[in-house]
Amino acid sequence: MNRREMLRAAAVGPMTLLAPTMADASGPSDAIAVRALLAEYVAAWATADAARMFASATDDIHWVNVVGMHWQGKPAVERAHDVYLKTIFKGVPMTLEEVESIVPIGADTLAVVARFDVGGYTTPGGFKAPASKDRMSLILLKTQRGLKIAHVANIQIVAAAAAQNPIRTPPQ
Amino acid sequence: MNRREMLRAAAVGPMTLLAPTMADASGPSDAIAVRALLAEYVAAWATADAARMFASATDDIHWVNVVGMHWQGKPAVERAHDVYLKTIFKGVPMTLEEVESIVPIGADTLAVVARFDVGGYTTPGGFKAPASKDRMSLILLKTQRGLKIAHVANIQIVAAAAAQNPIRTPPQ
Repeated sequence: MNRREMLRAAAVGPMTLLAPTMADASGPSDAIAVRALLAEYVAAWATADAARMFASATDDIHWVNVVGMHWQGKPAVERAHDVYLKTIFKGVPMTLEEVESIVPIGADTLAVVARFDVGGYTTPGGFKAPASKDRMSLILLKTQRGLKIAHVANIQIVAAAAAQNPIRTPPQ
Repeated sequence: MNRREMLRAAAVGPMTLLAPTMADASGPSDAIAVRALLAEYVAAWATADAARMFASATDDIHWVNVVGMHWQGKPAVERAHDVYLKTIFKGVPMTLEEVESIVPIGADTLAVVARFDVGGYTTPGGFKAPASKDRMSLILLKTQRGLKIAHVANIQIVAAAAAQNPIRTPPQ
């Protein structure tokens, strides 16, 4: 960590930003950049702005959503979100609950797992989806111009199943 | 592609291995290596062998399963699978249906989306889960000793939702 990064880390206070359960194998500057990217995602959701949401995406981003739809390439990913942000997700609250992990992969990639609180909504098929916690895997490419979202897979947490987890994890 | 890779490609016939809908931005040798890795995953499932399943995993692999359990690190990921392969998944058929995409990320990483058919099973909580199709994102690290599994997020496809997909995709 160079002096500038140390000053930034001290100013932003990453220890208070990161939840205590977080397994962070990356440096504080990665953690700060990830936080900023996720804050932008939340802000773009709140303003129903799909273009803003994917301003920092790779051209060949893939996105697999909570019901298993697999969108391939930035135009498809952005259009799908544009449709949903303006219809079923309109006015639905969505907040970041925790950055659970940031793990470097290879030379220039980060695997992030973050947990979100999403309000209830009605699906296009008429199903009333209750409020849920979603656990999102984001694969981020580190570039000279910052992090870019390269792949997302988003999974709704089944709360009833958590009690049967064979691995003991902190309560959520 | 060098001569050796051409011969391998010709011998194995990647065009017949890859489904026509596959958006493959990587080379044929990547596709062959991904196929081999997925075949090993299926074989390890069929023999309930968690050690075999994660022989080619990074030490800090993370795995988010279909109900949102987030396992962190190879010992936890392997142990969770060992428990489930010997109990709820015992004798449950699991087959690879399609490799949907292989997308290179950065210098040495591949993002793969593959679809699996999984037979019905009873969860530890007593819920009878019906047979399903699962869409798995696998983030693979390219090393000199071959591909290693670095991150997995596995999502059950909600068949009823597919008809409402705002992006037109091939029928599945």
